[in-house]
Amino acid sequence: MNDMTSTVADMMSELGRRARSAARTLANAPSAQKDKALTEAATTIRASIPAILEANAKDVAKGEEDGMTKAFLDRLTLDESRIEAIAAGLDAIVTLPDPVGDIMAGWDRPNGLKIERVRTPLGVIGVIYESRPNVTADAGALCLKAGNAAILRGGSDSHHSSRAIHACLTAGLEAAGLPADAIQIVPTTDRAAVGEMLRGLGGNVDVIVPRGGKGLVGRVQEEARVPVFSHLEGICHLYIDKAADAAKAVDITVNAKMRRTGICGSAETLLIDRDVAETIGKPVLEALAAAGCEIRGTADIRALFPAAKEAREEDWSTEYLDAIISAKLVDGVGEAIDHIATYSSSHTESILTEDAAAAERFLNEVDSAIVMHNASTQFADGGEFGMGAEIGIATGRMHARGPVGLEQLTSFKYRVHGTGQTRP
Amino acid sequence: MNDMTSTVADMMSELGRRARSAARTLANAPSAQKDKALTEAATTIRASIPAILEANAKDVAKGEEDGMTKAFLDRLTLDESRIEAIAAGLDAIVTLPDPVGDIMAGWDRPNGLKIERVRTPLGVIGVIYESRPNVTADAGALCLKAGNAAILRGGSDSHHSSRAIHACLTAGLEAAGLPADAIQIVPTTDRAAVGEMLRGLGGNVDVIVPRGGKGLVGRVQEEARVPVFSHLEGICHLYIDKAADAAKAVDITVNAKMRRTGICGSAETLLIDRDVAETIGKPVLEALAAAGCEIRGTADIRALFPAAKEAREEDWSTEYLDAIISAKLVDGVGEAIDHIATYSSSHTESILTEDAAAAERFLNEVDSAIVMHNASTQFADGGEFGMGAEIGIATGRMHARGPVGLEQLTSFKYRVHGTGQTRP
Repeated sequence: MNDMTSTVADMMSELGRRARSAARTLANAPSAQKDKALTEAATTIRASIPAILEANAKDVAKGEEDGMTKAFLDRLTLDESRIEAIAAGLDAIVTLPDPVGDIMAGWDRPNGLKIERVRTPLGVIGVIYESRPNVTADAGALCLKAGNAAILRGGSDSHHSSRAIHACLTAGLEAAGLPADAIQIVPTTDRAAVGEMLRGLGGNVDVIVPRGGKGLVGRVQEEARVPVFSHLEGICHLYIDKAADAAKAVDITVNAKMRRTGICGSAETLLIDRDVAETIGKPVLEALAAAGCEIRGTADIRALFPAAKEAREEDWSTEYLDAIISAKLVDGVGEAIDHIATYSSSHTESILTEDAAAAERFLNEVDSAIVMHNASTQFADGGEFGMGAEIGIATGRMHARGPVGLEQLTSFKYRVHGTGQTRP
Repeated sequence: MNDMTSTVADMMSELGRRARSAARTLANAPSAQKDKALTEAATTIRASIPAILEANAKDVAKGEEDGMTKAFLDRLTLDESRIEAIAAGLDAIVTLPDPVGDIMAGWDRPNGLKIERVRTPLGVIGVIYESRPNVTADAGALCLKAGNAAILRGGSDSHHSSRAIHACLTAGLEAAGLPADAIQIVPTTDRAAVGEMLRGLGGNVDVIVPRGGKGLVGRVQEEARVPVFSHLEGICHLYIDKAADAAKAVDITVNAKMRRTGICGSAETLLIDRDVAETIGKPVLEALAAAGCEIRGTADIRALFPAAKEAREEDWSTEYLDAIISAKLVDGVGEAIDHIATYSSSHTESILTEDAAAAERFLNEVDSAIVMHNASTQFADGGEFGMGAEIGIATGRMHARGPVGLEQLTSFKYRVHGTGQTRP
């Protein structure tokens, strides 16, 4: 270990200890105090627009100098309305109910003990993200509202912007009398800091949430020694059953693929029951193509729709995040379920059918975080689920699955109320 | 990697693949089919008593030859009544409700989407245990009932016994038409197999549950690359508040420490409010000593009760699992909470008081899996909680916390019921 690495390790270790200490205070902070911190942070953000824009201009200038893509620079660039949206996001989190202290279940035992399971914060949450400066506020605020301390590590490309926004969060915490260490930002762009976070800072990080592309998420999933809430990709499937309604099939398929092609809930593979290939499949493929979608299909798809390109084996496991869809004919819901079990990333899949039994089978047997019937996969979103803001979507089966909102950022404990009971 | 290691790795990898495949079948198996497998397994166990005793005799003979302790040999040795208890344990799991398919929550969205959160199995559970052959049946059956495949790795000292019991589970699965791979036992005593399980068998183990002493649990926690449900130790605290009832304090303290000293819910440290040192603390210490407990105390404890030995720093973080308790005077509930935050293993702590506000503060601020008021810490047990059988007790904050019963061996997914909705 060279001196530089040792310095980063020491600094991160100290950051972890301070986060754990702040988490203990936060765990017992009343909702009103946490909400005050968020409201004050929003006010400070609105009052700091010039300073945030100035910091952001430095990041953007550096990005241009480094020849970053237009899409990248667009994600990075802030303006007054985007900063207002960040502040409004904090206000929205204030309106969400505080999950901490909720009694999830309660029951009495024959010996008179009363047992309750009650929500508690998780502890310390590490958030590792890329060049979207708004994540600093969104993620920090969600962690805080659920009583957790946050350690934020934003992309080095948005470092100045993230620090300027973080300063507003700190001001909010201080105005509310909460420890500033409740939301810390890693003060270095040294990548060794990420490695330290992934190793858990000596037991002082309880979970890591990566926010970004497949490269970042893959590295986090591979290297983390603490639990991770994440999805590597969203290879979402639509299955058009033989009992599908033709008009719904066209509407939902075009929406699921084309509404926004770059989000994880966008459909990537279309499975069509062979029995309705001509009657429903063909108009659906035509509608997709008319909407500007490239179709990559098996031989029978290309017979049906000659403009389709040839699908290769890797197409079934590719998340295009683009106006491209892979398509295949299947022999009924069973083969659709088998295809999904083989190729899905366990994110979101939808069946289109008017046959209740086929829908029931699909919803039961497909093992993905979200399974849908007659609805667009683009609804895979915490906001659309009515859960308020989300910190991400998880495809693991441990603790959090699907949209990760406030409730998923909590743990629980048991409270046992006795009157002097001893165990016989 | 030498040939031997490579062989074990290949074998374990194949075991993992078969478990995953079985898990997919189990996830959709009806309760009646899983229950039939358990009932048939219990019947087979009862019919196989001579074969199980014969296998067990081999393990016991080896244990004696190896000079194992009396306690060890006692845990290892089976007789007819212990085998009957194993079969009865399976029957008891049959009577528990199947958690899979439970609708945990459901709500409607303004656009007409109906969203449900429904319980699903976790997937594949690895259980690593020591010389108690009954764990083979208990753990395998709990995993199965919750729709999970199990990979069992028992101690090499109980290998013959575990295999004989496992053969009965396999017979039960086959009689019920379920895949025999649903409950597999690692067929080698090579310790490399444990390392493979801890690395997760290429994504085919979702969680590991260690059952055994601190050595085993520590190794699993240290090396596992998949989530672990476990507690390393139970350093449980009793706090006698100044508003405690003297008679309850004597009864609960003696029970919490002395009912069974070798279990994780046994109290290891006694904190006494200085204000009631003479009036309550002294009679409690006398009662403990009269019950055969060694007391290790601070100077003020020794002034109060001269027979006490001196407590050293390491006593506050020692799980004695024996008739020994460490004791200390504190200035009120705040200092008790601080002591617990510093030394507790986050398992179970109890406050003895008639002051509702002090109890409320303790129950809120102590961050342990189980917090109690006027009750013995020895109630820290899934059966005592009314959860039926447990596979263990977890002190982590992720997914499962406290007793790990059937519900904790499940995950969930979202089912979204639409009528053709597309996202605007």
